[in-house]
Amino acid sequence: MATTSDIGVSLSINFPTALAFLIAFAILRLQPFNDRVYFPKWYLKGLRSSPRHSGTIVNKFVNLDWKNYMRFLNWMPAALRMPEPELIDHAGLDSAVYIRIYLVGLKLFVPITLLAFSVLVPVNWTEATLEHQSRDLTFSKIDELSISNIAYGSKRFWTHMTMAYVFTFWACHVLYKEYEIVASMRLHFLASEGRRPDQFTVLVRNVPLDPDESVSEHVEHFFCVNHPDHYLTHQVTYNANKLAKIVKKKKSLQNWLIYNQNKYARNPSRRPTRKIGFLGLWGGSVDSIDFYTSEIDKLAKEEEIERERVISDPKAIMPAAFVSFRTRWAAAVCAQTQQSRNPTLWLTEWAPEPRDVYWHNLAIPFVSLTIRRLIIGVTLFFLIFFYIIPITFVQSLANIEAIEKAVPFLKPLIERKGVKSFIQGYLPGLALKIFLIILPTILMAMSKIEGHIAHSVLERRSAAKYYLFILVSVFFGNVLAGTAFEQLKMFMHQSPDQIPKTIGVSIPMKATFFITYILVDGWSGVAAEVLRLKPLIMYHLKNALLVKTEKDREDAMNPGSLGFASSEPQLQLYFLLGLVYAVVTPILLPFIVVFFGLAYMVYRHQIINVYNQEYESAASFWPDVHGRIVTAMVISQLVLMGLVSTRGAAQSTTVLIPLPILTIWFHLVCKSRFESAFVKFPLQEAMMKDTLERATEPNLNLKVYLQDAYIHPVFKGGNGHHQPKPGFEEETNPLVPTKRHSQLSTPALSKHGSNSISSSSDTNV
Amino acid sequence: MATTSDIGVSLSINFPTALAFLIAFAILRLQPFNDRVYFPKWYLKGLRSSPRHSGTIVNKFVNLDWKNYMRFLNWMPAALRMPEPELIDHAGLDSAVYIRIYLVGLKLFVPITLLAFSVLVPVNWTEATLEHQSRDLTFSKIDELSISNIAYGSKRFWTHMTMAYVFTFWACHVLYKEYEIVASMRLHFLASEGRRPDQFTVLVRNVPLDPDESVSEHVEHFFCVNHPDHYLTHQVTYNANKLAKIVKKKKSLQNWLIYNQNKYARNPSRRPTRKIGFLGLWGGSVDSIDFYTSEIDKLAKEEEIERERVISDPKAIMPAAFVSFRTRWAAAVCAQTQQSRNPTLWLTEWAPEPRDVYWHNLAIPFVSLTIRRLIIGVTLFFLIFFYIIPITFVQSLANIEAIEKAVPFLKPLIERKGVKSFIQGYLPGLALKIFLIILPTILMAMSKIEGHIAHSVLERRSAAKYYLFILVSVFFGNVLAGTAFEQLKMFMHQSPDQIPKTIGVSIPMKATFFITYILVDGWSGVAAEVLRLKPLIMYHLKNALLVKTEKDREDAMNPGSLGFASSEPQLQLYFLLGLVYAVVTPILLPFIVVFFGLAYMVYRHQIINVYNQEYESAASFWPDVHGRIVTAMVISQLVLMGLVSTRGAAQSTTVLIPLPILTIWFHLVCKSRFESAFVKFPLQEAMMKDTLERATEPNLNLKVYLQDAYIHPVFKGGNGHHQPKPGFEEETNPLVPTKRHSQLSTPALSKHGSNSISSSSDTNV
Repeated sequence: MATTSDIGVSLSINFPTALAFLIAFAILRLQPFNDRVYFPKWYLKGLRSSPRHSGTIVNKFVNLDWKNYMRFLNWMPAALRMPEPELIDHAGLDSAVYIRIYLVGLKLFVPITLLAFSVLVPVNWTEATLEHQSRDLTFSKIDELSISNIAYGSKRFWTHMTMAYVFTFWACHVLYKEYEIVASMRLHFLASEGRRPDQFTVLVRNVPLDPDESVSEHVEHFFCVNHPDHYLTHQVTYNANKLAKIVKKKKSLQNWLIYNQNKYARNPSRRPTRKIGFLGLWGGSVDSIDFYTSEIDKLAKEEEIERERVISDPKAIMPAAFVSFRTRWAAAVCAQTQQSRNPTLWLTEWAPEPRDVYWHNLAIPFVSLTIRRLIIGVTLFFLIFFYIIPITFVQSLANIEAIEKAVPFLKPLIERKGVKSFIQGYLPGLALKIFLIILPTILMAMSKIEGHIAHSVLERRSAAKYYLFILVSVFFGNVLAGTAFEQLKMFMHQSPDQIPKTIGVSIPMKATFFITYILVDGWSGVAAEVLRLKPLIMYHLKNALLVKTEKDREDAMNPGSLGFASSEPQLQLYFLLGLVYAVVTPILLPFIVVFFGLAYMVYRHQIINVYNQEYESAASFWPDVHGRIVTAMVISQLVLMGLVSTRGAAQSTTVLIPLPILTIWFHLVCKSRFESAFVKFPLQEAMMKDTLERATEPNLNLKVYLQDAYIHPVFKGGNGHHQPKPGFEEETNPLVPTKRHSQLSTPALSKHGSNSISSSSDTNV
Repeated sequence: MATTSDIGVSLSINFPTALAFLIAFAILRLQPFNDRVYFPKWYLKGLRSSPRHSGTIVNKFVNLDWKNYMRFLNWMPAALRMPEPELIDHAGLDSAVYIRIYLVGLKLFVPITLLAFSVLVPVNWTEATLEHQSRDLTFSKIDELSISNIAYGSKRFWTHMTMAYVFTFWACHVLYKEYEIVASMRLHFLASEGRRPDQFTVLVRNVPLDPDESVSEHVEHFFCVNHPDHYLTHQVTYNANKLAKIVKKKKSLQNWLIYNQNKYARNPSRRPTRKIGFLGLWGGSVDSIDFYTSEIDKLAKEEEIERERVISDPKAIMPAAFVSFRTRWAAAVCAQTQQSRNPTLWLTEWAPEPRDVYWHNLAIPFVSLTIRRLIIGVTLFFLIFFYIIPITFVQSLANIEAIEKAVPFLKPLIERKGVKSFIQGYLPGLALKIFLIILPTILMAMSKIEGHIAHSVLERRSAAKYYLFILVSVFFGNVLAGTAFEQLKMFMHQSPDQIPKTIGVSIPMKATFFITYILVDGWSGVAAEVLRLKPLIMYHLKNALLVKTEKDREDAMNPGSLGFASSEPQLQLYFLLGLVYAVVTPILLPFIVVFFGLAYMVYRHQIINVYNQEYESAASFWPDVHGRIVTAMVISQLVLMGLVSTRGAAQSTTVLIPLPILTIWFHLVCKSRFESAFVKFPLQEAMMKDTLERATEPNLNLKVYLQDAYIHPVFKGGNGHHQPKPGFEEETNPLVPTKRHSQLSTPALSKHGSNSISSSSDTNV
């Protein structure tokens, strides 16, 4: 059973750690040479420029103004000061809504904590069951405050039943309100944003092949016939995956070239050399600068050939196209309707915004999609329940005897004491740790195989997979103390009414463990987040080795983004823990509340000063977030039912049965009430914007505007060629794809991308 | 265990019964006085007229031509002769596709039966496990041919595994092909049918209330703004439920009046009288003809007042409207898109065809709908699992002592031997029987409460509920030999891998029972269906008592309809039994095949000669049928896994695991490939029809055509007032709502129904 001292120890380690991180951050962020690490967002926005150009040399690197240090915690109120509308304007709706998840956590758990401490804790504490049993069992103060302290069959369980209902209603209330707010924020955002290509554009996939017509002609004819008054233009898509690969490789070689040039510039006495063998590790030496220059030239030629091939070869054209319409109304209509008799052809969906498109997947045919989803579904199942098997296998490979047998000449090295204990004590854990670190990447790769065509969807699907993994491995894995596979076996062999009981019984015993988990993963994790240790080191490394121009410095600065795919599922675990333990062990709640409060502040600071979202999906992830919190509610209710039924309060279990039913029904109500705001496009809104636009800009040439909105990024000048241009300014930097920029820059940059048929819309009015 | 003699007995009872029914039918159908019972469809079509007008008096009633009797079974080939396209034309697509379900049964089970008898039966029979054990257990020939005959852990189970795969693939193949055929039949049907009001019309529900505008104005303005080029006209709906009730009551009183007038005409010496008390059972006597005449007059006045009120009172206008568009394309667009920002307002869906509308539910608001569905869901759960409780309660009420106590003066009557044994032996069973008879009505009432607005949807939802009931009560109830509630308890207390085992073990033992069930319910039931005993008696009763005019005779003839809500779920049980027993006890399969063959012939005959569908949903029920057969496949696979795992063939169980996964995946593929053909409306098709129509009928006045298509039936002249008109012809008979008629007759008949705003479409082009 849990002991208070365990938590005391953990708290005494983690609280100082978190504090140290925060203080380190507070100091480091004031140093000018770290400015681009802690405030990259402002650089990208063009609202902040390098501090190097003024002041003394020392001042350029270190902040000597002692007054600044006095106010070293003032980033916290500063982070909270920016009002939400401005925040949306500054960081996008996705980020603004993302931090609302933490706010939901606070709204949900602060009143629950207060209520639990004023009602449940006294009720638990004044019953003295555990004290009487203390001769047999070890117990702790925490258990005295938890439901474990209530006697078998006690009438006091009615308090817990009532509280379960109160908590559920409160949670439903908060979730409903929040869904309402987010939905109206999204609609307001969509309604108030400026003209954007994706408002007029629909992505058409699975264009059937026609022996007499090219894809482009076929698309044009189809939409001229079926949307005669509305069709404007279209943009075919190219299979430029190979080209993109070449461009990427060239970029990496260019980095090496710059590194070597810098090296040579600093030390002109010796030209840098490298070996020509595998990865530059062996073989004869060559002059590095010459080597990379010639390699880059070779690739540049290859790129040119490939570029020509993609544009001229009809086979490189994929059976997918971006079709644009004269009005938003028509695009909304096309995106929501079925075009052809065969529902697997001419699939239309609202086009993602240009930076959100995942070009690689545009060419996947429909039949392949269903097979891919089956395979990924089965793989995910095995990954979640059997992931421990390959890890155990790797661990067994890492055992001493096996290594000594395989590579006998390493024996003397291995037999050394330090090495041996490292292999035995650390390697097995390392295999698991490495797996957990690369897991989000694996899940993202799986989502990509599934064939989604927008980065935002990929992130959402990865998040869903990661959530399942966390639920099974972290929550159930720790509650039931076994691998996921063993749990699965147990679930298969137990009756459905037995499972909640098994979980319910072990839940109170795991409270200490989860409090420790919250301290380590939650508190310290959040504090480490704000410190940005990895980007800090990477930036200074790059700065020292690769940076020549101001432009390079901007490249070196990596603002990163929120990482919805991995951070949201981790965050959901806290909702689950909070809801499960709210009735069972209320003492856990304050830790959750502190986590949500701290995380809210930190992430608000990060999205204001650091992160730069790569796309804007207008909070389309909210239904997932909502659904997962509801799942957590249902799990907590079932666990409570299981727990109570083992405590001789059978009739109270019956009282709890309506709870999950009502919760699921609540979910369905929310779904029918709000979800369509996230997946559909009301014609009324579209018509309103169209009418307004027609009145304010009667002479707009939409066709020119849309011409090159959807061309593959490798065809856009700035991104692929990467030649430092004279007078290069932040304004046209391709790494700054804010809304306005990407639209303004494209017509000028696209030399090869314009493939729309110019006479398309004139023939059929 | 099963014995062959049981089946022999059952066969010897049921085969003659079925044969007797068929012979009786063959004879009765040749009698002219039964002509309207067995061929009502042809009368309704106007292709057959009463045989009374010609020939001798005897010939009018009895067929004396012996040649006819020689060919008394020729209805069977006749039923099969009509080719499918003609059948669709004659009986509608719903009926034509419905009998295809029986055809699927044949396609599925004939090859399976052949294969099972050529492979599985020999394999089972040549193993002699049961013979060796015969000293301990009773066994029968049937068990020798079933999987029970295979020794524990025998290698022969591999044959069964292989066959399970073969059967599954064959079933998937048949289902896929059939789905494809039905989908293309539906699309072809929709594409080739003539102009119909529902092609241009969308039903809009939950029109928000506007303080400044009436519902009609609000609807007009909304669609003028949001579908400016396409909106044509609309039709508001009235809450005429009370009026419909009055009209119905008047109709019933009129029947009584006619009955009394006929009575008086036949026996002019005595004017008929009736008592004025409750239900005419007591109170003072009055002259019946005068009584009914005055009652009808009273109701007629009441009807007139109510009719005026509905038309003039703005409160009688419901927040729902039928909105018509200029083109099918525009209607398809509106039906598939979301109109307003709030997804609970301005809900649009494709309008059901006029005769399919269930007017009563048009006024239900959105919030109420979700609550209704929750309540009905919970009710259905209790109905299925606890239906036995109220029946037991009723049965306990019917026990002798209770009755004697409650009504002591009945004691001498009850104590008589005959009465006592009736109450004790028959009443308890009667309560259950009555429940089962009224169950479809209860389920239909529940579906109505759910708030669906088309008869076709109501039938589909009732069918879904009934299917669940049959699955739980008839299949699992009989396999596990207990009430549904006990099964539920058992399921709750058993582990998920134990349940298929429990079922699997008892499945082979229940083969005899289910064979008997197929004989009684299937064979005899189908034969009884063709005889139409109840309509036969009802027709002759009505004919004797109520018929005065030719028109009355047509009213008396009740063709009925297929009754999808109750017949389809019953039919699904045979698919389930066939699939479950295909591998386990193949001997059951021929009975299934005979059932499907017989039923196919009988129902084909019925839809050609008897049934008159009340609406046409263009086979929109097929996804349900397909889904249920797939469910049966999955159940059969799980049961087989459970069975095999108890027979010492653990590794073969593992081999079977992919089977349900593949089946579910197959279902998802079918769903994404075909389902949209049943729920969506491809724009390509709509555009094609529009273009064609514009070319062939450039001067069509669509507005006049649509004017009165969607008015409540009580406002249509012929149906409500029911006055025999001079020169009344079948052509305008309101009971014959074939497509062309309902359209042709409405403008002439509707005196009160024209409420569309005449200037609507001129203002906004």
